[in-house]
Amino acid sequence: MGDTSLFPVIESAQDVIPLDLRLGLTRPLDGNQILRWGICGAGRVCNDWVQSLKVVPGARITSVAARDPNRASKFAKLHGIPHVSNDYAELMHRSDVDIIYIGTVQSEHLAHALLALESGKHVLVEKPAGCNRDELKTMIETAKQHNRFFLEGVWTRFFPIVEYIRQILESNAIGSIVAMQSDFGFNSFEQEEYPSSPMYDKSLGGGALLYVGVYPISMIPFAFGNEKPCQVLATGYFDQKLQVDMNGAISAMYKDGRIATVMYGLTGETAEETTVVGSKGRIVIHTPAHCPLRMTVFRKKDGRGNVEPQTYEFPLPAIPQSVNETGGFVYPNSFGFQFEAAAVQRCIFAGLTECPQYTTDDSLLVAEIMESVRDQVTARQEEEHCNPHYLSEVPL
Amino acid sequence: MGDTSLFPVIESAQDVIPLDLRLGLTRPLDGNQILRWGICGAGRVCNDWVQSLKVVPGARITSVAARDPNRASKFAKLHGIPHVSNDYAELMHRSDVDIIYIGTVQSEHLAHALLALESGKHVLVEKPAGCNRDELKTMIETAKQHNRFFLEGVWTRFFPIVEYIRQILESNAIGSIVAMQSDFGFNSFEQEEYPSSPMYDKSLGGGALLYVGVYPISMIPFAFGNEKPCQVLATGYFDQKLQVDMNGAISAMYKDGRIATVMYGLTGETAEETTVVGSKGRIVIHTPAHCPLRMTVFRKKDGRGNVEPQTYEFPLPAIPQSVNETGGFVYPNSFGFQFEAAAVQRCIFAGLTECPQYTTDDSLLVAEIMESVRDQVTARQEEEHCNPHYLSEVPL
Repeated sequence: MGDTSLFPVIESAQDVIPLDLRLGLTRPLDGNQILRWGICGAGRVCNDWVQSLKVVPGARITSVAARDPNRASKFAKLHGIPHVSNDYAELMHRSDVDIIYIGTVQSEHLAHALLALESGKHVLVEKPAGCNRDELKTMIETAKQHNRFFLEGVWTRFFPIVEYIRQILESNAIGSIVAMQSDFGFNSFEQEEYPSSPMYDKSLGGGALLYVGVYPISMIPFAFGNEKPCQVLATGYFDQKLQVDMNGAISAMYKDGRIATVMYGLTGETAEETTVVGSKGRIVIHTPAHCPLRMTVFRKKDGRGNVEPQTYEFPLPAIPQSVNETGGFVYPNSFGFQFEAAAVQRCIFAGLTECPQYTTDDSLLVAEIMESVRDQVTARQEEEHCNPHYLSEVPL
Repeated sequence: MGDTSLFPVIESAQDVIPLDLRLGLTRPLDGNQILRWGICGAGRVCNDWVQSLKVVPGARITSVAARDPNRASKFAKLHGIPHVSNDYAELMHRSDVDIIYIGTVQSEHLAHALLALESGKHVLVEKPAGCNRDELKTMIETAKQHNRFFLEGVWTRFFPIVEYIRQILESNAIGSIVAMQSDFGFNSFEQEEYPSSPMYDKSLGGGALLYVGVYPISMIPFAFGNEKPCQVLATGYFDQKLQVDMNGAISAMYKDGRIATVMYGLTGETAEETTVVGSKGRIVIHTPAHCPLRMTVFRKKDGRGNVEPQTYEFPLPAIPQSVNETGGFVYPNSFGFQFEAAAVQRCIFAGLTECPQYTTDDSLLVAEIMESVRDQVTARQEEEHCNPHYLSEVPL
């Protein structure tokens, strides 16, 4: 007892069965099932998305639109995309497009998603989908009205390591979940010019919460399911000049003392790990936890002592020459977009309007937590700045 | 630039110079300088303390007292301690005792420390020294009145790995400190009978905050010095039957957005790591972070990219046969008490009344943060239990 037999031992990413298939909601992709993608935006994340789509069976990229038509043309030429749309509305109305990938700047997501949904397209919006909960809610309601597929692109949930962890948690191998921790911070000042980068521009959806906070926050419902936390406490730091948040820390309490802590920020490089703690062990998703290829399972023996920790590494598939020749990827592990894209295609072919890996309820809960965080951080920064009112001022 | 030359590279624990010596406050121990220890208590932690003292130059254990005289006699016989005191007061008044080590149950610390200090003895009290800030304050004030040495036994600060990290932080090799994270949780139910163990007994100083919270909380001023945080936010879970806290999570914000998060508890085994994040890299103190033997330094290169992470392991010295023959140690890495004990002796021989590794100001700041945590956790549990009042209740 108490050993690996407790959960399925999987040797490689190819052997992990994604949740939608495991649940019998979908079937493996059939190369004859063609899904035609329109790409909204031509920036760095769109590049990485298109590069990944090239290996997904049945994926066809038929059109791209960007604010700058020259940029869109260059993008189309580089990636062999047949059409360049003159503007976003033209893209959304094309008859050779089934689904729109929205990779524009944060503040434009809502307008583009509504345009696409109202034109009858399925939609995948980069995370966070909305600048706030109300924007997300509007998108989701619109998708429901038009009976279209909608996904907020929290790609972490589709990585084979994360799909595998779901199975380990289901097996009860680490007992009941009592805590989780997740962090994601980096020193933005080295890569993004301050204060001119969009990363610090409030009007474009800048700031730490929207840029990086969404990743560790979205791991809270991964550990605890779609239950609402009882309490969310948050503190964070605002850049006084730009009025964007630079970092934050969150404690979320669930019934019976289950607890989550999250830290995120643009000021320094944190460990970028996610740890899920159970009564009988824990699982650590190693850095970079937002697009992970490695995790370790620590478990207790029955009685005292520990089982030898087990580390699993599921490297990304080799990058095809054609993808390398067209410039490869901008961001770390972006080739992992393929897992998300394949799941989206399976779900759409099965007639689903969501992915079970990250449902619209997951999106809404995360947006709601973020809303609470924003309210609290804003309220605190409006108080006298860094007044030690929580600590006694009586000289000791 | 940007490489190991930035900080002193030390190969083994023996080459680490403790802070008190580095600052020139003390000198290496001289075997002729004898410090006579009286041991207050005869439980598990006292066993481990006495076993460690056996290798500290100049340390003599002259007497022991415990509530149960038979237990004290057995303890004295096992460890070759010449005298058994009839009661605590007798111990405190012995002329062959210079310093009292207090390893009794939490709720007795105050009475024993005052008795010792008022009898003119130096005092080392196991952590946390007080059940609350006022108890600690009383001890420290009494020590000052009597001009005696006082230390709260936060032994983590004396481990060679931690002494070395101080030097790395001073060297600015990871830049300015922007964040820290620390956690310590284990599943107490497997080792400590519920609800009868003192660990769950409020009247004896039970509960997660006092038992384990003190460790990660004491790492906050390690990262940020003796500055007060601007804000401390805490949530935690109370056992409704026993009225002790079972876990907690803390966010502490410092001026300019420096931020600390801490998680602790008795419900599941967390990673038990401490991470100090700087603008140019981070240091991870690996498990068990409260008595650590291993750490990794992650640093950025000048410009982009990272320096190869460097892991340092400073194992404990070999345990002498005599220590093994008398039963060895109860708790992990307890032989590391020797670093703390040696520093105490050096400081006392130098005429100091504190150790620079963990001053009374450090103790007071940690106690103050804990007081704020207790107040908040208590206030929240008196509110309706787990009412999701921080989240919108409007159906989405």
